[in-house]
Amino acid sequence: MTDDDIALALRLADAAGEAIRPFFRRRFIRETKDDASPVTEADRASEAAMRRILDAERPGDGIIGEEYGEERAQANRIWVLDPIDGTRAFIAGRPLFGTLIALIQDGKPVLGVIDQPIIGDRWIGAKGRPTSFNGEPARTRTCSGVADAHIGTTSPAAFPGNDFANFQRLGAAARDVLWGGDCHNYGLVASGHLDAVIESGLKLYDFAALVPVVEGAGGRMTDWQGRDLDRDSAGHAIAVGDPSLIAPIVDLLA
Amino acid sequence: MTDDDIALALRLADAAGEAIRPFFRRRFIRETKDDASPVTEADRASEAAMRRILDAERPGDGIIGEEYGEERAQANRIWVLDPIDGTRAFIAGRPLFGTLIALIQDGKPVLGVIDQPIIGDRWIGAKGRPTSFNGEPARTRTCSGVADAHIGTTSPAAFPGNDFANFQRLGAAARDVLWGGDCHNYGLVASGHLDAVIESGLKLYDFAALVPVVEGAGGRMTDWQGRDLDRDSAGHAIAVGDPSLIAPIVDLLA
Repeated sequence: MTDDDIALALRLADAAGEAIRPFFRRRFIRETKDDASPVTEADRASEAAMRRILDAERPGDGIIGEEYGEERAQANRIWVLDPIDGTRAFIAGRPLFGTLIALIQDGKPVLGVIDQPIIGDRWIGAKGRPTSFNGEPARTRTCSGVADAHIGTTSPAAFPGNDFANFQRLGAAARDVLWGGDCHNYGLVASGHLDAVIESGLKLYDFAALVPVVEGAGGRMTDWQGRDLDRDSAGHAIAVGDPSLIAPIVDLLA
Repeated sequence: MTDDDIALALRLADAAGEAIRPFFRRRFIRETKDDASPVTEADRASEAAMRRILDAERPGDGIIGEEYGEERAQANRIWVLDPIDGTRAFIAGRPLFGTLIALIQDGKPVLGVIDQPIIGDRWIGAKGRPTSFNGEPARTRTCSGVADAHIGTTSPAAFPGNDFANFQRLGAAARDVLWGGDCHNYGLVASGHLDAVIESGLKLYDFAALVPVVEGAGGRMTDWQGRDLDRDSAGHAIAVGDPSLIAPIVDLLA
């Protein structure tokens, strides 16, 4: 991962935002995918815009995108794209959805961008470098324990099986739970405004970009057993600003 | 309610926004009230700024505010102020909280402002006039039934007693549920981006401003029995963009 990769990721985010903005709060065609998640013209336009740049600039790299699938997915370097994370929020005219762009190298996310193209919130994380928020360094905050933690999560319906009951046990022990927000919540952890985000049912394109952002700001991301998230993870994610929160959160979710 | 009252409500919203913005995403003092809802320096500064204007301009009118209580609450005209609706979102640096300003006359809300001072979303509703959003007319959208409805609500924990179970029955029948958002969701109903918002446990200052905004855009607000919301309402609120949704939603919540 080089400075050129970071610059390229920002060009991808710019292109995605340009593709998305004309559709925001406008009438548009909305479909439902097999997994019942909605997809819009804007999702497709955003991912297509990013793929055009990658095809021209990084023809040998792999691509995994939410809407258009995999290309060269066995490559050592893979760009992982979620053109609109939070499509339900986007459809409702709520400016908290985001474009997620990650670069995975040797199976690990080394570069991540969370971009909110309406209100202009952009977090950039790159392995070995401090995370930035709109050009300034972003740092997580300390937290003395779960009882003092402000936790974010998107929706009860996003927790499969028993996961919602397990989450509710944690939520009851926390200071507060903030609902909704999708990827934007992870940026708020990186910037020290939220202490943790807990979700399940995430796909690779939902979390790959988040890891470098959160960890480069001093936080930590793991699965619900406290292990590194990786390409084969089952999608149970814990993100914390203060790494000491991982152990008690894992205990409460078990 | 006169043009002067509308102009005054906008001055109140401007003053609230000026008081709030310096605190957004900054370190600030946060306390917890008796009912466990958080309150911040920004809540107090925002309400105090609005009360200063009302004391000077409308010394005979009543005021009911979330943070500083009641003055002349038996007056015929009462200004109802929620300086920051969505304090949890505000604390977390999420720009979906809002300032709510209502004028109640003869016990009914006749003027309402929903103002989001960070992203600049402002809805103005006044009885007998079309609702406006950022200077343009706002109109709700039609909806063929609950199965096609995109519904918003803030948090499972905001539903007292059995209300959450009752809400979940409705949510399962709806097209989609969007979580989080506080007062901003009602503005999205007025602008035709969401079909309904269902909440309970609301206080007068939580809903008084919403009624003129939603109804002036073509929608309808009632309690969970389909009756008008008024000053003595128990705080169970339904807001819909298409008034034909009230009856099936009342049935599903019963």
